[in-house]
Amino acid sequence: MKAMLLNGKDVAKSVRESVKHEVEALKKENIYPGLAVVLVGEDPASKVYVRNKGRTCEKLGIFSETITLPKDVSQKELNTIIDKLNHDPKFHGILVQMPLPRQLDASEIIHRIRPEKDVDGFHPENVGRLILDEEGFQPCTPAGIMEILRYYKISLEGKHAVVVGRSNIVGKPMLNMLYQKKKDANATATICHTRTQDMGAITRTADVLIVAAGVPEFVTGDMIKPGAVVIDVGMNRVDDPSTDKGYRLTGDVKFDEASEIASAITPVPGGVGPMTIAMLMVNTVKAAKFQNR
Amino acid sequence: MKAMLLNGKDVAKSVRESVKHEVEALKKENIYPGLAVVLVGEDPASKVYVRNKGRTCEKLGIFSETITLPKDVSQKELNTIIDKLNHDPKFHGILVQMPLPRQLDASEIIHRIRPEKDVDGFHPENVGRLILDEEGFQPCTPAGIMEILRYYKISLEGKHAVVVGRSNIVGKPMLNMLYQKKKDANATATICHTRTQDMGAITRTADVLIVAAGVPEFVTGDMIKPGAVVIDVGMNRVDDPSTDKGYRLTGDVKFDEASEIASAITPVPGGVGPMTIAMLMVNTVKAAKFQNR
Repeated sequence: MKAMLLNGKDVAKSVRESVKHEVEALKKENIYPGLAVVLVGEDPASKVYVRNKGRTCEKLGIFSETITLPKDVSQKELNTIIDKLNHDPKFHGILVQMPLPRQLDASEIIHRIRPEKDVDGFHPENVGRLILDEEGFQPCTPAGIMEILRYYKISLEGKHAVVVGRSNIVGKPMLNMLYQKKKDANATATICHTRTQDMGAITRTADVLIVAAGVPEFVTGDMIKPGAVVIDVGMNRVDDPSTDKGYRLTGDVKFDEASEIASAITPVPGGVGPMTIAMLMVNTVKAAKFQNR
Repeated sequence: MKAMLLNGKDVAKSVRESVKHEVEALKKENIYPGLAVVLVGEDPASKVYVRNKGRTCEKLGIFSETITLPKDVSQKELNTIIDKLNHDPKFHGILVQMPLPRQLDASEIIHRIRPEKDVDGFHPENVGRLILDEEGFQPCTPAGIMEILRYYKISLEGKHAVVVGRSNIVGKPMLNMLYQKKKDANATATICHTRTQDMGAITRTADVLIVAAGVPEFVTGDMIKPGAVVIDVGMNRVDDPSTDKGYRLTGDVKFDEASEIASAITPVPGGVGPMTIAMLMVNTVKAAKFQNR
């Protein structure tokens, strides 16, 4: 293991501390940041995420409320709830926990949340603002990755940054953050995906390699340029009878190989994961500020 | 000269013909596509563009009106005009010719045009829709380039497409069109710009190279992979005392060198240029359809 570990827990902690101070300052101006979290159904992973979001809000002094809905709620009922939250001044941010049950149209929900309260950064207006480098909300996972790079003073300027994966919530916004004409960005940026021919030839040119492929241990050591910085967004359960739980968590990067070649790497868990909720808190405070100026 | 010429005039003509048929069909349903063009001031180039847009509308049976405003019009006055056009059902598309005089805030205007009538595809909601692969308006120049590639049956699937330049109206949307998960796209896509280190090393890996750098003859022959497809978005006036006008038009690619190395290339003029107005017509008809369904 030669690579430096990029510890997302440390970065997230530092972000949370600065959010906490901001919240205290806002309260002195009688602004009480608030987040509404909508949870539909009983998906165990979703329930854990939602609980963690609520707890983090509490720790940072952010008011939050979880609206729990039965798994068979109709689109119309959910729309009505979104509309109410859109107009409720207690809530500066609205988050609908994904994935949603099959009868619900996630895209319709994303479009329905007012862009000013879209702290997930999924509404097309916020996506557009990101690309145009205008003020708005940026999706939490890629924003968290930018924060990790800043924290560890890893410059992107003029470097080649390669993103593997083209999802709406990670790959696409990540790509568009990397090349922006501004401090802490300015990278040459490439996006690869399932249709890419000779993926290794591309990833081996990356000074910074960000992997959000959704495939366990997809990136092997031979696909990494010596000295590269590797960011692993994956979080996969892989069967492992040798463990108590019968599975282990693994990223999209073959960690043992990669950590011998890279100069720095995020572990899984404890890398990108902890950043997501921290950046949601950043966005919620930003929303409270926007709505009170 | 070994490369095949990609003739934008031919492609634009074919696009215009299909728009003309669509307009005729719409009229049978009592839908009369309409475009409002706002021209501020007396910039000679802008006047030419606006006149050409009006003429093309006329030829295709699209109703159009040009609103000419004095160069010292205030933001408030222009906003009022935009608001009126936003609510006028005669106009399905609204275009404000750029650049605007200094007292006017282009970004405010772009945000003010209803996304449903934003046939330039500059509103952040439309930019976001492009990235998320949702229905919306795409900026005319990159959309025209996609059309040229389709017309000449140049597949992007799995190829490496490299964009030089990161402007809001060409480079950024172009990048995001190239890698989308769909037919006629699916490229591995890279964006380079002024801060890119060793630009040539990147451009030489491009199977399709799209240059929108805004620098005359920026891309030289040695920066091109043998057999690559080269799309030149540049349109620069370069002093040339040997010509009658005292200048000649040149692209961002050194044509003489590039055309010996590339397998196909767009000329300047007559390449990408003619596509822009053609795609504006496509967007106007699309707007008329959206607003009547």
